Amino acid sequence: MNVAMIDDRILDANQIERPYLDRGLYFGDGVYEVLRSYNGKIFALEDHLARFKDSLAGVEIGGIDIDRIRSRILKAFDAAKIPNAKIYFHITRGSAPRDHNPDLKIKPNFFLTISEIGDYSKSKINGYKVSTYPDLRWKMCRIKSLNLLPNVLARMDAAKKGCDEAILVDEEGFITEGASSAFFACFGGNIQTAPTSANILPSITRKYISKAARNLGISFVEKSITVEQAKRADEIFLGVTTKDVIPVARFDDAAISDTVPGSITAKLISEFEKFTR
Amino acid sequence: MNVAMIDDRILDANQIERPYLDRGLYFGDGVYEVLRSYNGKIFALEDHLARFKDSLAGVEIGGIDIDRIRSRILKAFDAAKIPNAKIYFHITRGSAPRDHNPDLKIKPNFFLTISEIGDYSKSKINGYKVSTYPDLRWKMCRIKSLNLLPNVLARMDAAKKGCDEAILVDEEGFITEGASSAFFACFGGNIQTAPTSANILPSITRKYISKAARNLGISFVEKSITVEQAKRADEIFLGVTTKDVIPVARFDDAAISDTVPGSITAKLISEFEKFTR
Repeated sequence: MNVAMIDDRILDANQIERPYLDRGLYFGDGVYEVLRSYNGKIFALEDHLARFKDSLAGVEIGGIDIDRIRSRILKAFDAAKIPNAKIYFHITRGSAPRDHNPDLKIKPNFFLTISEIGDYSKSKINGYKVSTYPDLRWKMCRIKSLNLLPNVLARMDAAKKGCDEAILVDEEGFITEGASSAFFACFGGNIQTAPTSANILPSITRKYISKAARNLGISFVEKSITVEQAKRADEIFLGVTTKDVIPVARFDDAAISDTVPGSITAKLISEFEKFTR
Repeated sequence: MNVAMIDDRILDANQIERPYLDRGLYFGDGVYEVLRSYNGKIFALEDHLARFKDSLAGVEIGGIDIDRIRSRILKAFDAAKIPNAKIYFHITRGSAPRDHNPDLKIKPNFFLTISEIGDYSKSKINGYKVSTYPDLRWKMCRIKSLNLLPNVLARMDAAKKGCDEAILVDEEGFITEGASSAFFACFGGNIQTAPTSANILPSITRKYISKAARNLGISFVEKSITVEQAKRADEIFLGVTTKDVIPVARFDDAAISDTVPGSITAKLISEFEKFTR
């Protein structure tokens, strides 16, 4: 008899429930998005759906109707009635007995959660402490996949150091992005960030930060930043979907910026707010 | 109200069952093993448990009693009564609402399946067809983690090409290993495989293949192999936990070996059998 065991409980393998057979669990064979609402209005929904579509294509999960995903998000958001909500959703390739090579007939699994975003106003005033960690991730980080163990290990390391976020550094010493954020530094009045050709996620917050910079007449330079350069930056800030622009007060052992937020970061925070109204 | 949605069904987030909150699903935050039995006898159990312990340490999942894992495996194997069984098990960091940075108080989840290994005698006679694919994996493949999406994508590509396995090739053109196998080639009477310092899993089948080679007086050379070298190999074979030594008959567009299995591969298959009795 084929058997399964969950903790100490043995059962007939035919009795295993679908979530235990999810390819998302066995292989991280799925893609996800995180988005948020501001005061009852979902922000950048179409951007997130477009990126989700790209991620699905990147891992060849087919047959997903994006209109239906949009409806589900809106329906769940309506039900939740949370003005400032974090919306997480993923699709996995489906549930089946474990085999690397998927049965192409299985049906993808959709899962979503909506929760309240807590008060993060102190982060905007005090700034984050961040620490660096090797970028151990796979070579396709433009795809927002469920293979996030390197990000978890980076965040565990940051937490041990009393830091709020881990900044990932590639083998050549360049910063790619944060474990769950986009990374920006300011030098001589310009904003600088890694080009999207680096192994990074096309951040939607980044897109709106770039737009905010344009509105403010601040140059937005796409060029990779080394750790040593970052330590000498005039300002550093992160782009985080759930909190938009977050100033960084400390980068490893270096204090960043005389005031937190720095003047460019403060302007961006205000400008970004206009998009979210 | 915090809500969750499973396919089209909305529910209170408090009603979500544990498997939907598994960090294995959100992040691939877990490690696994696959082992097998031959004629009612589990093969290399202690090797697999030792590697599992290393994987747990590598991702800092603590508090796991390996003796208890061994007991569970033996108990489930007894219950299954399958002489030639494939035993899969994983441990994830636990279940909790999604947050990269884990709550250190959560309890790890154990999951195991035992199923019958089908007849693979034809693979030993006809050999595998294999195709190359870029090694897109993370930088810590010595850890047997649940982050296996690159392996899945490689196997999907192989399947499209009518192949049985994908052989992963790093950016410098060297073969690392198969998507779910170890890779070996024979040149001038020697066996060659990538050193474990390459970003590969310390394969247990490899360990026993090396032992078999020693018993047979065949040199076992640890040196990376390029794709072009592999195409000109006298023989190629794979090490697969569930099928031990599998000859390769075709590597991309190149026919390998005049006979399948080649003479070294055939000797290894016989020698390996002695370990499994």
